[in-house]
Amino acid sequence: MEFLRFDDASFEAALERIVARGEEPPAGVEDVVGEIIARVRQEGDRALFDYTVRFDGLDLSAATVEVSAEELEEALAEIDDDSRAALQLAADRIEAFHRKQKQESWLSTDEPDMLLGQLVRPLDRVGIYVPGGKASYPSSVLMNALPAKVAGVGEIVMVVPMPKGEINPHVLAAARLAGVDRVFKIGGAQAVAALAFGTESVPRVDKITGPGNIYVATAKKQVFGQVDIDMIAGPSEILVINDGSGDPRHVAADLLSQAEHDELAASILVTTDGAFAAAVKEALAEQLTVLPRREIAERSLANYGAIVVAADLDEAITFSNRIAPEHLELAVADPFAVLPSIRHAGAIFMGHHTPEAAGDYLAGPNHTLPTGGTARFFSPLGVDDFVKKSSLISLSREGLQRIGPAVVTLAELEGLAAHGRSVSIRIDK
Amino acid sequence: MEFLRFDDASFEAALERIVARGEEPPAGVEDVVGEIIARVRQEGDRALFDYTVRFDGLDLSAATVEVSAEELEEALAEIDDDSRAALQLAADRIEAFHRKQKQESWLSTDEPDMLLGQLVRPLDRVGIYVPGGKASYPSSVLMNALPAKVAGVGEIVMVVPMPKGEINPHVLAAARLAGVDRVFKIGGAQAVAALAFGTESVPRVDKITGPGNIYVATAKKQVFGQVDIDMIAGPSEILVINDGSGDPRHVAADLLSQAEHDELAASILVTTDGAFAAAVKEALAEQLTVLPRREIAERSLANYGAIVVAADLDEAITFSNRIAPEHLELAVADPFAVLPSIRHAGAIFMGHHTPEAAGDYLAGPNHTLPTGGTARFFSPLGVDDFVKKSSLISLSREGLQRIGPAVVTLAELEGLAAHGRSVSIRIDK
Repeated sequence: MEFLRFDDASFEAALERIVARGEEPPAGVEDVVGEIIARVRQEGDRALFDYTVRFDGLDLSAATVEVSAEELEEALAEIDDDSRAALQLAADRIEAFHRKQKQESWLSTDEPDMLLGQLVRPLDRVGIYVPGGKASYPSSVLMNALPAKVAGVGEIVMVVPMPKGEINPHVLAAARLAGVDRVFKIGGAQAVAALAFGTESVPRVDKITGPGNIYVATAKKQVFGQVDIDMIAGPSEILVINDGSGDPRHVAADLLSQAEHDELAASILVTTDGAFAAAVKEALAEQLTVLPRREIAERSLANYGAIVVAADLDEAITFSNRIAPEHLELAVADPFAVLPSIRHAGAIFMGHHTPEAAGDYLAGPNHTLPTGGTARFFSPLGVDDFVKKSSLISLSREGLQRIGPAVVTLAELEGLAAHGRSVSIRIDK
Repeated sequence: MEFLRFDDASFEAALERIVARGEEPPAGVEDVVGEIIARVRQEGDRALFDYTVRFDGLDLSAATVEVSAEELEEALAEIDDDSRAALQLAADRIEAFHRKQKQESWLSTDEPDMLLGQLVRPLDRVGIYVPGGKASYPSSVLMNALPAKVAGVGEIVMVVPMPKGEINPHVLAAARLAGVDRVFKIGGAQAVAALAFGTESVPRVDKITGPGNIYVATAKKQVFGQVDIDMIAGPSEILVINDGSGDPRHVAADLLSQAEHDELAASILVTTDGAFAAAVKEALAEQLTVLPRREIAERSLANYGAIVVAADLDEAITFSNRIAPEHLELAVADPFAVLPSIRHAGAIFMGHHTPEAAGDYLAGPNHTLPTGGTARFFSPLGVDDFVKKSSLISLSREGLQRIGPAVVTLAELEGLAAHGRSVSIRIDK
C-alpha cells in the first residue's frame, strides 16, 4: 500500500506501475491461441472436444456438449429461495435500467423530396462467455445476457467451461432467469473460436461478450472483425475521491471489495484530508483480518493499492480524470457539485451511501465497465452493444435532381467518373 | 463477371471467392507494423520523421510537421467556387443528418430513494486518418470529422501523408470546412502509432478513425485497446436487388461506380428478370468503354463481379441477407415493401432514383460503412462513435437499506465477502 502525495519524488513511478499493470499478455499466448482458433475453425467439433478433454478434463460429444432446457429449469428450482429471490430482483432491476437505453429507428421527413433515416436493429445471435470454476459468477450472466435480451437479440448462446464436469447451479439459474437460449459446456480460446466460426454443434454468432482469462481475452481480440466483441477488459480498479467527510471504515470496506477480486486489482483513495487517509489505512488493516480472501486482498493492496493526499478537491479530480477509473466513488459531502468536473469513469457512485458493490450486483447499470484508463473512450456494456444500425436513403427524382449536380462535382474532384455518371445518367434527361 | 443462378454447381465456389476476398493481410505486414509502432512509441518524433522520409520522401521537423491554420485557410480560398460550394453543401447535409443521431444523458427518478442514470459525453480528442496521394478524398474528411464535431469532441486531429510534399488542397479545404483543429503531414503505420501514443509534436488521441491501406488497417488493429478505433474495414461492395423494373443502364452505372474504386471491390446484381440481367451486362460493356478508370473497373468486375438470376424476390432477399452488403440498392418497384425483410446492410438505397453515389457524397448519412459481411454486427460511422458513456448511481441511506440485503446475498453466493461487507457495514446500524 503506497501512501503518497502528489509532490513525492516517487509519485509518478508509483502511478506508472499501477497504470501499466497487466498490459501485455505473457509471451507465447498469442501463438497458442492462434493455433487453437485455426484448428477449431478447420476441424469444428473434433478440435473443440479434443481441447475440452485436454484443458477441462471433460469428455464431450455432440450429444452432451449442450446443457438441456431441463437442466436449466432444475438449476433454478434447486437453488435456495434467498438466492433465487436475489437473482430475480437483480434481473428485474438490470432489465429495467437497460430498457431506458433503447434507441429507436427513425426516419426524417425534413425535405419534401427525400427520406433519410437510421434503422436500429438487434443482432441475430450473440455469444456470452462465462468463466468456469471459482470465478463463475451468476451476476456476470445477468449483466451480459439482459442487455442482449432487451435489445431483442434473436438467440443468446452462452458458453461456460465445466472443469471435470463441475457445474455451478447459480450460473445456470441466472442463465434461465435472463432468458439465455442455449448453454454449452465449453470454455477457453476453443469456445471463443467455436462461437466465431461455428462448429457442427455450436452455432456461429455475430458478437462475443463476457469476461475471461488471458487466453479468452486474446482469442476475442484475434477473432475481432470476424465477429464483433465487447471491450478489451483488463484488471479491475476503484478510485475513491474523498473530502474528509463520511466514515473511513466505509471507504476502507469499499477499497477491500475491489482488492479481493484478484491480485492485479487496483484500489486507490485520493482524499484532501490527511487524518481521514490515516484512518482508512488503519481500518484497512483491521478489516483485512476477517476477510476470507485476505491473501488476495493483501497482495493487491501491497502491489497496486494507494492512498493519495491531495491539496484540494480540484487536485483530486484532476488525478481521477488522468486515471479514468473503471469505478469512481465520489465519497464527498456534495457529490453532485463534483460531478460536472469528472470527465472519464466507467461508473460513478455518488455519495456516502453508494458502495461499488451495489452497482456490481443490482442497482441496475451494467457491471461490465471499461478498465485501465479505457473509460476515456469505451463505455459500459449496454443495449447499444447488441444492435447494429443501417442508414436509409430514399430520393425521389426531384430529390436527385436537386442534390445530383453537387454529387457530380465532388465525384469529378475525386477522379471517380463512374460515381458522377451514375447520377448524371439519371438526371441528364 | 460471373453470370450465375443459385442452382449452378459453381455458385457456392464463386460466392466464396467474392466473400473471402482480401481477408488476410500479406505475410510480414504484422511484423513490420509492430516494429514501426514500437519504435514510434519509444522514440517519438525521431522515429516518426525517420519513417516519413523513408516511406513518403518527405523530410519533416517539429517546425514543419503540422499544417498551419493559414495554409488551411488558403486551401479553402484557392479551390474553385463550384468545388467549394459542393463541399459546403455536403458538409451542411452531413452535419444535419448526424445531429439527429445525438444521444442525450439521462437520469431516472423512478424510485424515491435512488437516482440512476447514464452520462453521454464526447471524447476529448480524436484522430482522423486520411490517405494521401491519389486516394486522398475530401469526402472522407467530411464523413469522419463531422460526426466527431457534432458529438462535441474537444479536439479533432487529422493526419494525411503528403508524399514528396504533394498536398491535396481539396482535402485541406474539407478539413477547414469540417472544423478539424490540427492537421499533420504524416501517414502510414507511423502516423497511427503517433496518434495512439503521442510524440513530442503529435498529441495522443482517444480514438482513431478513417480508411487506409493494409499497413494503416493493421496498425489500427494493433493499437486497439490503447485507443479505440472504428471498424476493421475491408474492400468495398455493392449489392443491387432488382425485380425487372427500372432502367438496366442505371443499374449498370451503379455497379461501375463501385467497381471503379479498386480491384478488390465487389459489384453484384441479383435480379428476378433474366432479360434485365442480360441488358445490364450489355450496358456494362458499353459504359466501360468511356470510363477513365476502365482498367480497374474491368478487373474488379472480372474477379468479383456477379450477376445472379433469382427465382423470385424472396430468394434475392435471402441472398442479400447472407451477404450483408455494405451498400444495398433496392432497385425495385416498391422498395418499402421489401425493406422489412432486409436484415443486414450498411446503407440501404431505396428505389430507382437513389444511386449509391448520392450517399457516398452528400445525401447526409455516413459513407464509412461496414464491409465484407460485417454489417451483421457493425454500424455506419456516426456520432455514437465519438462519445463514451458513464453510468451514474446515487443511493440514499434508504435506498441502500432497501436493496442492500439482496446485494449481500449475491456477494456471499459468489464468495466475495468484502463486497457484502461494504454494504452490511453501512446498513447494520
